[in-house]
Amino acid sequence: MKAVAVISGGLDSTTMAYLLRRDGYTLEAISFNYGQRHIKELQGAQRVASELGAPWTLIDLEAAGIARCLAGSALTDPGVAVPDGHYADESMRATVVPNRNAIMLTIASALAASSGAEAVAFGAHAGDHPIYPDCRPEFVDQFQSMVSIAMQGVAEVRVLAPFINMTKHEIVRLGYQLGVPFEETWSCYKGGDAHCGHCGACVERCEAFEVTGIPDPTRYEMPSVAPLPR
Amino acid sequence: MKAVAVISGGLDSTTMAYLLRRDGYTLEAISFNYGQRHIKELQGAQRVASELGAPWTLIDLEAAGIARCLAGSALTDPGVAVPDGHYADESMRATVVPNRNAIMLTIASALAASSGAEAVAFGAHAGDHPIYPDCRPEFVDQFQSMVSIAMQGVAEVRVLAPFINMTKHEIVRLGYQLGVPFEETWSCYKGGDAHCGHCGACVERCEAFEVTGIPDPTRYEMPSVAPLPR
Repeated sequence: MKAVAVISGGLDSTTMAYLLRRDGYTLEAISFNYGQRHIKELQGAQRVASELGAPWTLIDLEAAGIARCLAGSALTDPGVAVPDGHYADESMRATVVPNRNAIMLTIASALAASSGAEAVAFGAHAGDHPIYPDCRPEFVDQFQSMVSIAMQGVAEVRVLAPFINMTKHEIVRLGYQLGVPFEETWSCYKGGDAHCGHCGACVERCEAFEVTGIPDPTRYEMPSVAPLPR
Repeated sequence: MKAVAVISGGLDSTTMAYLLRRDGYTLEAISFNYGQRHIKELQGAQRVASELGAPWTLIDLEAAGIARCLAGSALTDPGVAVPDGHYADESMRATVVPNRNAIMLTIASALAASSGAEAVAFGAHAGDHPIYPDCRPEFVDQFQSMVSIAMQGVAEVRVLAPFINMTKHEIVRLGYQLGVPFEETWSCYKGGDAHCGHCGACVERCEAFEVTGIPDPTRYEMPSVAPLPR
């Protein structure tokens, strides 16, 4: 069994890669520079791939000239500020990157076809649902239908989204059991020297460690940060 | 009305862009370097965009490092020869690039969202159906369903494939009526100095002019070439 794992260097996709390995998959890893502010997450992705012995393909969409296609998101557009707040807040819509997951999964599916993998996997989780339309179960279903038709007769690729109905704290608990090196993962949307502690991704990460009681190895800029009230 | 037109510099997508303009669309044009041998087709794409007054975005997937994902096709892999023969022959399967149209359309859809276009359009035609799974009406339908879910609440994008049930010679006839500068379009998969006259794309192009009786301005390496018997 071989799978192409889309890994960002974040906590979710790193845990997913460890889960796939535990479940017996040989892994190909693929990561994307889409012009995200938190480009440093990719250092973690490369380390994870190396630790799992997976060939790592970096697709540099920024070098491809994709900026104009993904303009307007706080994650890619220097003119749009990253909002502070809770991950599921309405204000987090500013961090939606249009069609991002479909772009990544179409390319990952091509890699699966070319490398003889039977599956592609990505780390969307239940906490993403309120804000990101391309992180919902119905997106996974529709993408599966589309890619099966698009590559009919060429390759069969299953789309795996093992965390699609799991919360962040369930993922942290699973990652802890799997021995995931959380300290090497990056969540913060702002991409500074340390995790900011205030953006949606930081608040969700911090809360997940609090809820589970698992020690949080993350260095936050504001070490005393408490999750913002909802 | 605004549409993002995926144009390759070939005869079909060029005619499509002229058709969209006639139908009142303001155009954004997008083209892709995916490592195709016939990269020179993109010169035609740039000219078409310029002639139609459309902003032209070139997405350089080769620079992004996509080669490994698209390996194994005669169009992208120097180790696989371009087959001669008729366009619909079984041997033409060597020219399938896995998931190519889904990759291009996901990125074009993001551009539509970012630029306020209501539609994306691509030039797949009925002659593509026997060989290319991502040129069939069912692919268009599934892609539409997928992208509507992927960008729900972000943007609404209609997928247009005006030639999906038209033959090449119907497209040539339409292009002639629209004043398409056929001499600036490129079809040959081999990407040499002139059209080779023997690959599937050349044979189909040559036949279409023959059938319609419209003068063929194409310079073929073998000017006396006749379509191969089926």
